[in-house]
Parts: sequence; structure tokens; C-alpha cells
Amino acid sequence: MDEFDLIQRYFKRPYRKNAKVEIGVGDDAAVLAATPGRSLVVCADTMVSGVHFFSDVSPYDLGYKLAMVNLSDLAAMGANPVWATLCLTLPTPDKTWIKSFSNGLYEALDIHDVTLVGGDTTKGPMSLTLQMGGEVESGQAITRGGANIGDLVWVSGELGVAAYILGLRIEQREGGSVDTVQLGKLHNYLDRPEARVELGLAISGVASSCIDVSDGLLADASHICDASTVGIDLELDCLPLHPSLAEHLELDKIINCALSGGDDYELLFTVDPYKQRTLFDISARLGIGLRKIGTVTNTGRVRCFRDSVDVSAKYANNLGFSHFS
Amino acid sequence: MDEFDLIQRYFKRPYRKNAKVEIGVGDDAAVLAATPGRSLVVCADTMVSGVHFFSDVSPYDLGYKLAMVNLSDLAAMGANPVWATLCLTLPTPDKTWIKSFSNGLYEALDIHDVTLVGGDTTKGPMSLTLQMGGEVESGQAITRGGANIGDLVWVSGELGVAAYILGLRIEQREGGSVDTVQLGKLHNYLDRPEARVELGLAISGVASSCIDVSDGLLADASHICDASTVGIDLELDCLPLHPSLAEHLELDKIINCALSGGDDYELLFTVDPYKQRTLFDISARLGIGLRKIGTVTNTGRVRCFRDSVDVSAKYANNLGFSHFS
Repeated sequence: MDEFDLIQRYFKRPYRKNAKVEIGVGDDAAVLAATPGRSLVVCADTMVSGVHFFSDVSPYDLGYKLAMVNLSDLAAMGANPVWATLCLTLPTPDKTWIKSFSNGLYEALDIHDVTLVGGDTTKGPMSLTLQMGGEVESGQAITRGGANIGDLVWVSGELGVAAYILGLRIEQREGGSVDTVQLGKLHNYLDRPEARVELGLAISGVASSCIDVSDGLLADASHICDASTVGIDLELDCLPLHPSLAEHLELDKIINCALSGGDDYELLFTVDPYKQRTLFDISARLGIGLRKIGTVTNTGRVRCFRDSVDVSAKYANNLGFSHFS
Repeated sequence: MDEFDLIQRYFKRPYRKNAKVEIGVGDDAAVLAATPGRSLVVCADTMVSGVHFFSDVSPYDLGYKLAMVNLSDLAAMGANPVWATLCLTLPTPDKTWIKSFSNGLYEALDIHDVTLVGGDTTKGPMSLTLQMGGEVESGQAITRGGANIGDLVWVSGELGVAAYILGLRIEQREGGSVDTVQLGKLHNYLDRPEARVELGLAISGVASSCIDVSDGLLADASHICDASTVGIDLELDCLPLHPSLAEHLELDKIINCALSGGDDYELLFTVDPYKQRTLFDISARLGIGLRKIGTVTNTGRVRCFRDSVDVSAKYANNLGFSHFS
């Protein structure tokens, strides 16, 4: 099987009806229609074996997650996802692996009607790059830079499970006798995250700033602070912790997972206090839990409070995952 | 230096005046304006150490070439390049290396006014992915699929030098006593190819099909045949061989480099015979040599002729480079 067969067999599917894709996989480049009055939003994420995933992870989950990680970036901009390109570097063309990977990728893309329009396949150490394009009304993208002092800080869903599961997997690989089987569906928080695309679209025009929680809540809150030149005070008592974690961990450790673990792919956003009512309506309509967890301040940095006590010092070194740090 | 410093320092430059880029590097995704009546064209290429380049190659050249390889894909569609995203996987954040790489990348992007709008940086085995977006008038992209029987086959520039230089480098690495210093500027054909962006724009509306010569002339001609369901007869006596090669190689080997070596990044295209006059004008205006090298046929495959003799059998196994074959 050569490169062209590989593309033909696993990544060239009949197009879903999508008027925006004029020319897709198979030419030098893909051609996509632009909609007047709308802007193009593009993002890209790479996953590297041994860094973002263990080499024995299910290829189906890997494909699924690669798509969701990009969808989450578009969600955080309030964009409607449209197309993606895939650059795949693999040591060998293992057909079973590629088939399963492409099925997982397409499952996630299909949920949000995204068309794979091109890319590149190469032989080398395993590395997977997906790039995605979406659309937003001109001027309506939700950036990290729009938070205003006095805004309230909200987050969707529940935090910390992905970090907890990842911690257990690492322990297990290092020889610990950890029983991860009993955790059942909790594994999905790490392996098959769900991007908050509908939520991102719904809070466009409502939220003043937004980011997805991929590096960890503290790190991502600090990105909003940097981009908006504001501070954020977080109320740790208000964090939406997953109830199942209480069976396995003490509260302090659960809070740690929520603050410093990445991979949650929930949306962290700021909202003018007068717009809270709209958020309740959105939460009810989409069936997604939204929680108010803090306030935008003029301190220029992220602070953490418990029972009204400033406990920031405790988390000073927990600003999340960064490559090369 | 962490990931965010790295982006800030080497890949977040003041934007060149480009009204299309509304939000660039630094948010979850980039936002780009769409022009009414025009289509978006996107392409992506990956370079992997040990496959596409030797690990000791100049990082400046590597950045330059990564940009040009993508620009060449857009050129082959007749598109005007606008923006790019970069996914960079590196084992260590070597500042000197990254600085030089980003300088090379930006030199090539600047030539064609392309803005780097985002991407991802990751730690892992070296792998470099650039994705590029461009624009074309709706319905005017030049595909591989438009060649008609009776069209003439044209190619730009000169062929075979990149393959010759690559061959010498491989020999040298394997211990051969090859003097590559005397080859001077010929090295640039391999290390700093020039994408034919202006030519691609000029032949839009003139050429019936087009592809860039990256996998080798025979392989790329066969891609046109497959996409257009036609055949192509090539006249090997008409190939534009670089005159300097005659000092170093016999004619047979030069033809081999031209037919089977990749990395030329010239445009191979088909044109209705009645439009030849337009090509002479384009060639004169752009100062780019264009050569007629064959005819589109109904045979469904690529054939090679010398002195009117079918010598296809000689090149039957030379259909160019493919990963995983």
C-alpha cells in the first residue's frame, strides 16, 4: 500500500452534502467557498506519541480525540466548524491501525458535519496533525482578549476527571497496582472528550471572552488575563467537581486535578453580570451545566480563594502543562 | 523557554498589512475575512527529519523550503496565497535552531505576502507541518482533472537538478568522496526551491489542468492522467534539462533525474493548442521559461518517446517517490 492508496482507501470518503467544499481530497489543495459577511476561523493541533498519548492507546480514540481537540478550539471562538486537513506521519502503514484511526476521526467529524478536505501522509515517527477551519459572523469571534473588570467568570461541565484518569494510567504504567477497570465511563473524559461546539455558538455575542480548558483551569484563566490585561479571582468552593471523584480522592486532590489538569475541553468564559439570565436560558436549552466560578479583577493575575481566604500561594507552581517548560 | 514564550518570541511578528487577517497568532484559532465571490484554497505539507531532510540541514533552508513546498501546491491551483499555520514538533527548544528556522520560513512567506496566523508547538521527534490557505475566483481553481485529449503538455523552468544534488548528498553521506562544494548555486534547486506562484495565477483560465512537480515528472503526469481519465505522451527530447548537468552526467542519467526525481516544484500543465500564443506572452512577461513536452492522449497512461520511439518500458518502474510503497 503506497501513500496514494492509503489516502484513497481511508481518507477519501464520499462528501457529505456540504456546499462549501468545492474541491476536496486528491488535488494539490482543497477549494472551499467563502460566505459573504462571514470570517474564516482556523486552528491546528498536533498529537505526538509518548507526549499526548501512550503508544498503545486505541487508534479509534486517538482519531476521535484529535478531531475533538480542534473542535474545542473552534468552539472557544464561537465558530461553526466546516472543514479539516490531516497531516499524518506514521512509521509503518498498519492497515488495521489506520482503519480504526480514520473511523474514530470521522465519527467525531461527522457529529459536527466537518468535511476532511486534504492533508499529507508521510513515513516517520508517529505524529498526527489536524487543522480545522470554521466560520463566524464577521467581528463576532469570541477572543481571549475581551474580558472586562467586573465581568463574571463561568465554566461549563465538570472539571478534573481527565487529569485524575491520566494520573492513574501513569501510575499503572510505572508498575503501580492500580485497578482502572472499575472507573468505567470516567475513561471517556480523557479518551473521548466532547467539544462544546453548540455552547460556543450560543455564547457568541453573550460572552466577553472565552478559552477552552486544555492546559488546565489556572493556566487557561491566566491566558485570558494576559490577553485582556485583567486579573481573575476564582472561588474554589464553586468549582464544578465531578461527583464520582469524591469516591476516589480527597477534596484537596480533586481541586488540584480541576485547577492544574488539562484535557477537560470545557469552555471558560467571562460575561457581563447583566447577561447572566441569558446564560441560564442557554444552559437549560442545551442541557449543559454552567457554573459561575469567579470574577474579573484589576489585579493582573489569577488568584484563588477558599472560604474567602486567599490560597493562591498554594497553587503558585500549578500553572498547567506547557511543552518545553 | 516554554511553549508560549517560544511562540511569542519566534512566531508572533507584527502583522504585515493584510486586511484578511482579523485575529492571528495567540488565540484558540485565527480569524480570517472571506472575500465575496472568491473561494478558499487550502493545502498542507509535513517534513520529517530523516525522510524529507537530513538532520544536519540548515534550519534556515528548512523553514524556507517548508513554505515554498506549500506555496507550490497553491501555485498549482492558480491560487493567491494568503495565510499559513505551523505545527512544529521538536525534541528540544534549541533557540539558535528555531530562530534560524523561523527566519527562513518568514523570508519565503514574505516574498508572497503570506501571514502566519497560528499553529501548535509540541515536544517530540522532529516533524514540521505547514498548512496554507489562499484564494481563487470561484470556479477558477486549476485542478488535475481538467485535461482534454488533444491538449498540449507544458512545463516551467528546468528539471532534474534537485534530484541530482540529492543523489550526490546521499553518496557523500554513505562515505563516497564526492565534492559537492563546486556545485555552487545548483544546491539552491534542492534547498531553496522557488514556488511558481505568479505563473500559477497567470495560467488560471488558460491551462486546462495543472500539478506541481514534487513527486517526479512521470508520477505527477500520471496523477493528471488519473484525475482527467486521459493519457499523456511525453517527448523526452523536449525536456528542459538544466545545461549545467551536462558537465557532470551522461544524458541518460540526466533524463532519469528529470523524469523520476522529485523536488523540482515546477508547474506541469495542459493547454488547448489554440491558447499557445497566450503562453508565449506569459513566459515573456514573467521571464519564466515554458516548454512544450507532450500531448494529452486517450491511452489512459503516461508514455515516453525518444526520436519517435516508444521507450516507456525503460521507465516503467520510475513512477516517482511515494511514502509507504
